[in-house]
Amino acid sequence: MLLKDLQTVTIVGLGLLGGSLAMAVRRTRPGTRIIGYAHRPATRRLARRLKVVDDVTGDLQEAVGDSQMVVLATPLSTFPSLMAGMAGALSPGAVVTDVGSTKVQVHAWAMEYLPKGIEFVGSHPMAGSEQRGLAAARADLFSGALCFVTSGRSDKGAGKGLVVDLWQELGCRVCQINPVRHDRIVAGISHVPQAVAVALVNATNGRYIQFAGRGFKDTTRIASSDPRIWTDIFMTNAANVKGGLDKVIRQLQSLQRSIGSMDRTGIRHHLAKARLKRRPIASF
Amino acid sequence: MLLKDLQTVTIVGLGLLGGSLAMAVRRTRPGTRIIGYAHRPATRRLARRLKVVDDVTGDLQEAVGDSQMVVLATPLSTFPSLMAGMAGALSPGAVVTDVGSTKVQVHAWAMEYLPKGIEFVGSHPMAGSEQRGLAAARADLFSGALCFVTSGRSDKGAGKGLVVDLWQELGCRVCQINPVRHDRIVAGISHVPQAVAVALVNATNGRYIQFAGRGFKDTTRIASSDPRIWTDIFMTNAANVKGGLDKVIRQLQSLQRSIGSMDRTGIRHHLAKARLKRRPIASF
Repeated sequence: MLLKDLQTVTIVGLGLLGGSLAMAVRRTRPGTRIIGYAHRPATRRLARRLKVVDDVTGDLQEAVGDSQMVVLATPLSTFPSLMAGMAGALSPGAVVTDVGSTKVQVHAWAMEYLPKGIEFVGSHPMAGSEQRGLAAARADLFSGALCFVTSGRSDKGAGKGLVVDLWQELGCRVCQINPVRHDRIVAGISHVPQAVAVALVNATNGRYIQFAGRGFKDTTRIASSDPRIWTDIFMTNAANVKGGLDKVIRQLQSLQRSIGSMDRTGIRHHLAKARLKRRPIASF
Repeated sequence: MLLKDLQTVTIVGLGLLGGSLAMAVRRTRPGTRIIGYAHRPATRRLARRLKVVDDVTGDLQEAVGDSQMVVLATPLSTFPSLMAGMAGALSPGAVVTDVGSTKVQVHAWAMEYLPKGIEFVGSHPMAGSEQRGLAAARADLFSGALCFVTSGRSDKGAGKGLVVDLWQELGCRVCQINPVRHDRIVAGISHVPQAVAVALVNATNGRYIQFAGRGFKDTTRIASSDPRIWTDIFMTNAANVKGGLDKVIRQLQSLQRSIGSMDRTGIRHHLAKARLKRRPIASF
């Protein structure tokens, strides 16, 4: 199926990502019908009031039955029960994707819970923030963002093209990658930094936080993120995050030794190396 | 002396902080003569071209001779030789202050190198950025910033009032504090986060950095700071930074154990605790 033939899409979960996706699809594909599934009545009421979807329901099977594409936009730990719950109601040939931050475990769940004939393609748009909920959603959330698209070994690739086209239409730069490599990369650039920010805040004397300047605020901003979402991410990318934290701890111990022994050259080496490595993303 | 009687101020070092201070004083006290000292001819030329000071010189004794207030705005490690170099030329009753990020060592240097009759008051405006140099200076850099003001045990306090009044006039919130407590606080909210950002960048696979999103960029932004300035800061606050890094490493190891053993409750506890602690500075 081609993107231009996409008549109905279902978004499962109307939080920051799901809500923003609905708004973005509405804007770029006004002809596509958008059905939302939300577990909480308050979210369904807000979705109706904000008119982010054409229809919203708390019945999962009803939500997915007519759709050619289903997007999971709930915390990762809900995927097994949602996949199992929708399996019998998906229309033949439907493509299922998601917006979760890890991919190996998600592909394994798709293999286990989705019926044959339903293609699963993984998506991970690197968008979002420490904010959460439909109230924070916005149509341009994905604009300019990097979106990883992953597929399992047995896929024919018809669904993959559809998913890639959709994200590109929403303004994403798409990077097709295998799930194993995806999880390794995002551990390094997202999950390990999250763990480090959390550890830094927890190591800081609470009475000193009132004195914090922009440096501390920026460095720890992501530590204000939703604990539930991040618990799921750490649980589904545990080995990579654990290995990445080993490296951070070794770096901290090395820098600490240089500082403890007043080794000016050693300290400067750590600082200069970090500055050089970061040059490709420095804004000046 | 009262601030309204301040006729001449000398700023030693015309980088981001010194240059911004000159611009800010020029704006708020157009009647006060500002003399700049810059070691590098290129900086002196730029200072003349930008007209940030009334006079600029590469002769330290000439720069300080007529001033009632001298502000050191160079890297910390240059303070001993600058203090020794200006000692014989300071006018009686002059007040010396600085903008350095640590204070215990600076007060010790002032005791050692400045003559009796010259009062030293420490200042640490929590402003600046990962940028550097006079070209990045701006008159509003200190506006709204927190500024620590510290004094030694033997001070009469006349100079302290002058320094406090000056920073307040430039828009700072002033916090008077003793140097020992200052160094402990800034280790927690600034120097340890700097070390953590540096270690995080150095632990990250360089090939993955191209995929970094806003989270990684914000968390590591300060790792692009000037290595020289931060080497001096770590060297002059070594014990506090070393102790703070111990705490961060213990937090990382604890979180890592929870992740390694797939302890959902333990992981969530770390995340929820950090989010709660950070609430006073969260922007939502």
